[in-house]
Amino acid sequence: MDNGQNLGSRQYTVRILSDEGHKDVTCYGGSSLMDIFRQNNIYIEAPCGGKGICGKCKVRVRNGEVSDMTHLESQFLSHKEKQDGYRLACMTGILGDTEVVMENYLEGAQIMSTGIEYSVDISPQIAKKYIELDVPSVDDQRDDLKRLADALKTEAPEAGIFLIRRLPQVLRDSDFKVTVAYDGNKILDVDKGDTSDKIYGVAIDIGTTTVVCYLMNLITGAQVDVISGLNVQRTYGDDVISRIQYTMENIDGLSRLRQGIGNQISELIHGLARKNHIPIDDIYNVVIAGNTIMSHLLLGITPGHIAAAPFTPVATKAQIYNARDLDLSLGQASRVFVLPHISGYVGSDIVAGILASGMDRSEDVSLMIDIGTNGEIVLGNKDRMVCCSTAAGPAFEGANIRNGMGGISGAINTITLDGEKLRYTTIGDKAPLGICGSGIVDVVAMLLDLGIVDETGRLLDEREIESEVGSKLACRLRKVEDGLSAFTIVDEGSSGTGGSIVITQKDIREVQLAKAAIAAGIKVLVSKIGREMDEIANLYLAGGFGSYIDKRNAIRIGLIPPELQHRIIALGNAAGTGAMLSLLSLAEYERTNTIKAKAEYVELSSTPEFQNEYVDSMYFESP
Amino acid sequence: MDNGQNLGSRQYTVRILSDEGHKDVTCYGGSSLMDIFRQNNIYIEAPCGGKGICGKCKVRVRNGEVSDMTHLESQFLSHKEKQDGYRLACMTGILGDTEVVMENYLEGAQIMSTGIEYSVDISPQIAKKYIELDVPSVDDQRDDLKRLADALKTEAPEAGIFLIRRLPQVLRDSDFKVTVAYDGNKILDVDKGDTSDKIYGVAIDIGTTTVVCYLMNLITGAQVDVISGLNVQRTYGDDVISRIQYTMENIDGLSRLRQGIGNQISELIHGLARKNHIPIDDIYNVVIAGNTIMSHLLLGITPGHIAAAPFTPVATKAQIYNARDLDLSLGQASRVFVLPHISGYVGSDIVAGILASGMDRSEDVSLMIDIGTNGEIVLGNKDRMVCCSTAAGPAFEGANIRNGMGGISGAINTITLDGEKLRYTTIGDKAPLGICGSGIVDVVAMLLDLGIVDETGRLLDEREIESEVGSKLACRLRKVEDGLSAFTIVDEGSSGTGGSIVITQKDIREVQLAKAAIAAGIKVLVSKIGREMDEIANLYLAGGFGSYIDKRNAIRIGLIPPELQHRIIALGNAAGTGAMLSLLSLAEYERTNTIKAKAEYVELSSTPEFQNEYVDSMYFESP
Repeated sequence: MDNGQNLGSRQYTVRILSDEGHKDVTCYGGSSLMDIFRQNNIYIEAPCGGKGICGKCKVRVRNGEVSDMTHLESQFLSHKEKQDGYRLACMTGILGDTEVVMENYLEGAQIMSTGIEYSVDISPQIAKKYIELDVPSVDDQRDDLKRLADALKTEAPEAGIFLIRRLPQVLRDSDFKVTVAYDGNKILDVDKGDTSDKIYGVAIDIGTTTVVCYLMNLITGAQVDVISGLNVQRTYGDDVISRIQYTMENIDGLSRLRQGIGNQISELIHGLARKNHIPIDDIYNVVIAGNTIMSHLLLGITPGHIAAAPFTPVATKAQIYNARDLDLSLGQASRVFVLPHISGYVGSDIVAGILASGMDRSEDVSLMIDIGTNGEIVLGNKDRMVCCSTAAGPAFEGANIRNGMGGISGAINTITLDGEKLRYTTIGDKAPLGICGSGIVDVVAMLLDLGIVDETGRLLDEREIESEVGSKLACRLRKVEDGLSAFTIVDEGSSGTGGSIVITQKDIREVQLAKAAIAAGIKVLVSKIGREMDEIANLYLAGGFGSYIDKRNAIRIGLIPPELQHRIIALGNAAGTGAMLSLLSLAEYERTNTIKAKAEYVELSSTPEFQNEYVDSMYFESP
Repeated sequence: MDNGQNLGSRQYTVRILSDEGHKDVTCYGGSSLMDIFRQNNIYIEAPCGGKGICGKCKVRVRNGEVSDMTHLESQFLSHKEKQDGYRLACMTGILGDTEVVMENYLEGAQIMSTGIEYSVDISPQIAKKYIELDVPSVDDQRDDLKRLADALKTEAPEAGIFLIRRLPQVLRDSDFKVTVAYDGNKILDVDKGDTSDKIYGVAIDIGTTTVVCYLMNLITGAQVDVISGLNVQRTYGDDVISRIQYTMENIDGLSRLRQGIGNQISELIHGLARKNHIPIDDIYNVVIAGNTIMSHLLLGITPGHIAAAPFTPVATKAQIYNARDLDLSLGQASRVFVLPHISGYVGSDIVAGILASGMDRSEDVSLMIDIGTNGEIVLGNKDRMVCCSTAAGPAFEGANIRNGMGGISGAINTITLDGEKLRYTTIGDKAPLGICGSGIVDVVAMLLDLGIVDETGRLLDEREIESEVGSKLACRLRKVEDGLSAFTIVDEGSSGTGGSIVITQKDIREVQLAKAAIAAGIKVLVSKIGREMDEIANLYLAGGFGSYIDKRNAIRIGLIPPELQHRIIALGNAAGTGAMLSLLSLAEYERTNTIKAKAEYVELSSTPEFQNEYVDSMYFESP
C-alpha cells in the first residue's frame, strides 16, 4: 500500500466554524479542504478553480493535522496571516481531525465568486420525480408512454425516440417504479427505481484560450467539481481571427475545429463524471457560454462572415440541442443550452458576465469590461445597456507582445520595484517563461512612473535613462533585433527559456493601441447613454486578467478611468458564473434572453466619435 | 434508335372530355393514359396503383391512336364496354392525338378513391414562401437567422443545426433571395431563389404484406405517383406474430426489422423522386399509417408486449420525428409524422381508414371492417365509436390455407360456376399459383350453394356429392396428405406450380373460425352501442380484399350481415387515402388525434359475450 492509499483509507472529522455556527463533516485522509467544501456544499471563493494560483480560498486552520505549506502557497499569505494559521483551502490536505474557520461561509444555494454573492432558487430546466405506475392489465391496456404521462399528469408528452425505445424495458425491469427526468411536457429520461436525487449539469465557459467546465448538483445547487483545459483549437491559431481563417482556407477546417472542441468538451465532462463517480447519464443539462466565434465553431456554423464587415454572425439567439445533434458523446437524454449572443463580437460570455454582475437589474449605472482576446465593454443599468467590442484586447493576453504569453504557469504576473531592485512573481512559482497581461500593465506603469517611458510612449535611450533614473535600471536597456529598443525584465541566466524576457518599444506601442481603444470605447458608451464618467457606480472587471491586475497600475496606463478607482469589482470568471446561474435556474437562463434583448450593440468601426477618442487616448498621462 | 425512343421523341395532344368540359394536354408518344392523368393533375380511380389488376380506371377512347388491348386488360371489360371503346387508363398507351371521355373527372384538390369523393383544403403542415431579405450592412448587422425570421415575421424561430449550418452559404449564394419552408415558427429549409412551387410529401401505408407510398404535390394536392412493394420484413415472417417472435428471439432482431423497413421506405421514396425528377430535398413530409406493430418496428420500439396479454403497446400517440432520427435517408429537413394508434391491435391504418370513410363526422352509424392480417372492426358515428380486433383475419389473406396466398400476381381471385364448369380468374392473368381471399370466399360460397359443404362446414364425401350435385364436380373431390378431404379448383396440369390447387376440409374450418370471429365482433360492437344491425347506414370495407370480394358470397358465408347487403361501400386502400388526406391538410392530420381520442377499444378476449357470439356464428346458414 502506498502512502496515498494509506491516507485514503482513514476517515477524519473536519469541524467548519463560521458566523453561522459550526458543521462537522467527515473526509478521507489526504483530501484537500477545497474538495471537502465542495463535497459538503460549502462555497469558497476560488476563481482559479482550486489550482493554487489565485490565492483567494483563504481559511484559518485552528486545530488539527494538515499538510505542510508549499512555497507556492506561502506566496499568497502575509507573515501575519501565516502566524494566524491561514492557509489556502485548495493546497491544504487533511491528515487528522481538524477545525477550520471560514470568514465567508455560504451554504446551500449560493455561489461565491470574487466579491459578489449570488442567491438563486434552484429550479433548473430539468426536474426529476419518482413515480410508481399502475401495472398493465387487460382492464388497463394504456400504452407505456401514456401510462407514464398520466402518472406525471402531462397531457401531451414529448419523448425522443431513444427514450421511447428504452421505456418498455426500464418499466418492466423496475416493476413500474421509476424516476422520470422531465422538462415541462418533455420526458427526457426514465431510470429504474428512485434516482430523484441524482441530477447533475455542467456549465461551460468556452474561452478562446481556456475551456472551463463546472459540474453542478442540480438538486442542491452545489458546485461538485470544476475542470479546465487549454482550448484544443489553439493548434489552429491562438486568436479567433486565425481560427476563422483556418475554417475559410481549409475545406474540412470548420469540421476539424468543431470536432476538436466537441471532443474536448465530451472528454472534460466524462473526466468530471468519472472523478466524481457520477454516471454520465445523470448529467442532463449543459449550458454553454462563450464568445460568438467559439459558439459558432462548437455548433459547426461558419464564423467566416463575422471576420469582415459587416461582421454578420449566422445565429445569435439562444439555442437548445440534443447533445447527439452536436456529436457530443454525453448521455442520450443530455441537452445543450447555448446562451445567446448580442453580436458577432459581443458573445454569450459577456451576456453571462452581465448576468453574474447583476448590472441588468440595478438602478445604478455600471460598467463592465472584459479584457481578453477582445476588449468587450458594457455600460448601463436595468433600463438600458449599450455595449461594444474593441479589437484591442490581445496585447493584454500576451498576443503581439515579444515575450508575451497567456496567464498560465511560468508567466510573470506581477512586477514591482523594491528600491532600485526590480522584483517579479510568476504563476505557479516557475522560472519565468514570458509575461502575461497583469505583468505587462505593471511594467508599463513602472516605466512611466520612472520616466523611462515618456507620455508619448517613447522608451528613452540609455543616456536619457541614466540622467533621469540612474544606472542600475539604465543597464536594463538594450537593443534587440532590427535595432528595436527594449527594457529587460529578466536576463538570460534567470529565465526559464534561456533567453532574456524584455518589453520592447513595439510592445509599448501595442499597449498604447490597446488601452486607447478600451478607453475610447468607454468614452463612446458613456456619451451614448448621456452620462458622466463619475455617475458610474461600479466597474466590473470580468475574466482572469481583471482579478490579477494591479488597479492602480491599470489607471496609471490609462486603461481604466481614474474616477472609478474605488469602484472596481473583479468578477473572476464572470462567464462561468453566469453559465452556472443559468444552469441552476430557469429564471436566470431566461434572463440571458432579456439581457440580449436589452443590450444595444454599438459598432465602433462606424462611429466617428470613436476614432477621435481613440487618437485622444493614445498618449499616457504625465506623472 | 429503338421503337421506344422513337415514340418518346414525338409529342401528341390528348383531349380529355368530361362533364366539366374538355382539357387538352400534351404527352410523349408511348405514355400511358394513367401517367398523363397524373402529370396533369386529373384523378382517376386506381386502387391497384395502375398495375392493371383492379380494372377500376376505365375511360372511353373516342378517337385517335392508342396501343392494342392486352389479354389482361380485356378481362376487365365486358363485350359492350369493348364495343363502346372502353379501355383501362393504366394499360393504354398513346400513339397519336387522342380524345378520351372520363366519366369521373376530378381536378385539383380532390382525391377519388373507390366510390368516395374527398374535397380537402390543401393546407399541409409545411408552407413555402419566397422572400427577398435585406442585405447585411454595418448599419444592419442582424444575424442570418434573425434576418430570416424577421422577414418571415416569426418571433422565436426554431431551426435545426443542419439548416443553420447551411444558412449563410444559401443566403449569400442567392443574393439573399430565398425560399423558406416552414411549419409555424419552425424553419425547416431554405432554398436559393424561388422554389415556392416545389413542395412534395409522401403518404405511406405500411401493411404487414405490402408497403404503398403515394407521392403528393403539396401545392396542388395532386397525387404525382404511387409505388408499392412487398414489405421486406416478410423474410422474417408473414404475419405480425412471427415478426414479433423474431425480435424477441434474436438479439439484433428488432434492429434488423427496423433497418429493413427503414431502408425499404427510403428506397421507395428515392425511386419516386427519381422517376418524377423531383429532388429528394423537395420532399418535406412523410405521413405513416400502419398497424401498431408495423409502426413499432419502423420506430425501433419493441412490439413484444403487444404479443401477450395485456397486449400493451409502448406508444400509441401521434409522433413526429426528423427523418434522420429514424435513420431514413431522406432530405435533411424531412419530417416523419407517424399517425396515432388506438390500441395494440387497432392501429393507425384503421384510424386513417376511419378518416377516409368520414364515419367520425357523420350522424349515421357506420360499420367499418378491415379484413387483413387481423380483422379490425369499427362501429359508430360522430358521437361515439367502438372498435375491436379479431385475430381472425389471416385466412382471408391466404394464411393457414393450404394453397392460400396474398392478393398478388398469379392468385385466383374469382371463382364462378358456369353451368357445371368451374371458372376462375387470376391476378395478372397468370397461370394460377394459389388462391387469395376473394377466391376463398367465392369457393366456399359456391360449395355451400352446391351443398358440397353442409351448414356445419363439413365437406361431403364423394358418394354424398354424387347423389347431391352430380358426377362432374364430385370427381373434383380427393384426399390429400393425412387423408384430409379436399376439393380441387385447379388440377396439376393447369396450375403454374405443377401441383393441384385445392381447398381442404381444414381450410374450410379456418374460414369458419375467421368469419365467426368477425361476425361475433360485429355483434359485440352493435350491442355495445345499444343499436340494431339494421340501424347501420353504411358498411365500409377497407383494404384490397374489400374491393375484390363478391359481396353476395361474403354474405353467403356469414362474413357480412345480410341486413347490410345494399349498404356496402368498398373504400379501397383506406389507410393510404387517410394518410394522403393527413399529408395534404393539417386539419385532417389533427382529425386523426380526435379519432384516436373518440374511439373506444373493446378487448374481445375479456368480453364473455364475444365467446358466446363466436360459437353461435360458427356454422353456415342453410341455403
